[in-house]
Amino acid sequence: MGAIVAGFPDHAVLTEVGPRDGLQSEPVFVPTQKKIELIQALLDAGLRRFEVTSFVSPKAVPQMRDAAEVLAAFRDRKDAHLTALVPNMRGAEAAIEAGVDAMVLFASASESHNLKNVNRSRADSLKGFAEVARLAEGSGVRLQGAIATAFGCPFEGEVDVSAVVDQARAYVDLGMDHITLGDTTGMATPALVVDRVQALRPVLGDSTLALHFHNTRGVGLACVYAGLSQGVTYYESSIGGLGGCPFVPRATGNVATEDLAYLLTESGVETGTDLDRLIRAAQLAERIVGRELPGQVMKAGPRLKTAPMDSVRTANG
Amino acid sequence: MGAIVAGFPDHAVLTEVGPRDGLQSEPVFVPTQKKIELIQALLDAGLRRFEVTSFVSPKAVPQMRDAAEVLAAFRDRKDAHLTALVPNMRGAEAAIEAGVDAMVLFASASESHNLKNVNRSRADSLKGFAEVARLAEGSGVRLQGAIATAFGCPFEGEVDVSAVVDQARAYVDLGMDHITLGDTTGMATPALVVDRVQALRPVLGDSTLALHFHNTRGVGLACVYAGLSQGVTYYESSIGGLGGCPFVPRATGNVATEDLAYLLTESGVETGTDLDRLIRAAQLAERIVGRELPGQVMKAGPRLKTAPMDSVRTANG
Repeated sequence: MGAIVAGFPDHAVLTEVGPRDGLQSEPVFVPTQKKIELIQALLDAGLRRFEVTSFVSPKAVPQMRDAAEVLAAFRDRKDAHLTALVPNMRGAEAAIEAGVDAMVLFASASESHNLKNVNRSRADSLKGFAEVARLAEGSGVRLQGAIATAFGCPFEGEVDVSAVVDQARAYVDLGMDHITLGDTTGMATPALVVDRVQALRPVLGDSTLALHFHNTRGVGLACVYAGLSQGVTYYESSIGGLGGCPFVPRATGNVATEDLAYLLTESGVETGTDLDRLIRAAQLAERIVGRELPGQVMKAGPRLKTAPMDSVRTANG
Repeated sequence: MGAIVAGFPDHAVLTEVGPRDGLQSEPVFVPTQKKIELIQALLDAGLRRFEVTSFVSPKAVPQMRDAAEVLAAFRDRKDAHLTALVPNMRGAEAAIEAGVDAMVLFASASESHNLKNVNRSRADSLKGFAEVARLAEGSGVRLQGAIATAFGCPFEGEVDVSAVVDQARAYVDLGMDHITLGDTTGMATPALVVDRVQALRPVLGDSTLALHFHNTRGVGLACVYAGLSQGVTYYESSIGGLGGCPFVPRATGNVATEDLAYLLTESGVETGTDLDRLIRAAQLAERIVGRELPGQVMKAGPRLKTAPMDSVRTANG
């Protein structure tokens, strides 16, 4: 193409969260070999950052009970950055043992969502993070932080930007070098993205900022546009749009990686990914979960895939 | 909310194309009373501009054979602006007779799509428009022009911006006071939107510019964002996302009106619409066509629709 959007950064880095965020919400256990096959397909498509798995109680989240095994399959890929979600000290010990590059600690910007999600107050979550930070010291494993409900809470409604800023400041103080704003239930809007990104700038220091949007209300990629307009270069997404919104039965969840990569590439923002291979990986993800996924580009194909003139009927305009 | 996105216009005007563009591609005839009920619901939701129908051959497009009847139902709504697609002189005569506010004439920016869509060359299309323009003179019926495949052609690939500019100039010369760029098969990207809007500025004169995107590759609302960033205030959309992409079986077509209205309102851009009522109209559209439509907000509900804390299980972040 060559077409660019003035003001956008010249590159962006995608973190694939499908293997964790996506497959964790599947009703059945996805076999370990299928997970490995999917991650391999995503590596082949050029992705290099992965939220691979979650070190959680296998009783609470049986879908992630093969965390160490999945990680082991990619530990020798030195070009890949592999993270895992860690809810507590036990998970942190297992994650370090398994050889993650970074642990992702997570708490919500709203009190009631944190209580619902991890059964403790936000203050207690931060205390737990401090323990994990001490454990991680000297291990070579980095710390990342996710701020859930950063754009709104399904129980409380609006979340004040100051709650997000305070939480990010606490994360930075704990040594987290990468902070993600999570749009847990699809309440982000472009205006809120601009607001939060601008408010966070003074507190981030050397930590990088990532945005993770859900397409629950159709505006996931418009929010990415807002992030790009503010110079944000890290985005999280899920191949095919794997992973639903836990609050709304028919609604979609994560922005689809291939749709995001399409938007970025067609806006002159380099991602290092190969769209045809991403589409194939999305098709693989559909086969693995056995149902249609919400990603759009995987259905329509790349922009310049032309059709023979006798292949279609048109509909006047 | 009150949140705004800096640089966006303070208001936008939506044209609902579902009754024509959406229902025309339905496999069965939607009963006239259902069409009227849907348009009434959209009026009740605050929409005021409608592409109501199409004056085409009832043999070629039986879905629109009740064009005059549907229009007649709303002719006394002086606050509503009612247009119809008109492919030729016979259609123009019928449209004027039926009392449309404006006729929409359409041709493609690419030669092969025009041949496929209306079976004549682009030059011949323009000649036909000149005839219609003479017919319309003194009738009180205005002329609008749609430029199909304005962002790319499914047969030819890229469409040069100069083809779009030349066509718009010809439209202005024919007296068309409102020109729509149609993203016929979902090939628009933000970069192309910026490019075309800027290139068209010098030729539009007093004619207004509208953008009509398809969400075929997931970036429809990101393209709206690009349009807003350029100050464009007219957008076309379809309730629930009615209407498919004729080229791709599983792909979606028009941007959903309620998703568009949601994005605009949450960005501080006034539309005069009521989101709850738009959602109800989208649900009505789903009942009328008897299948799930691609609109997202109709499934998830407004942003601040909160859930009781015991209503859901969460999924860690």
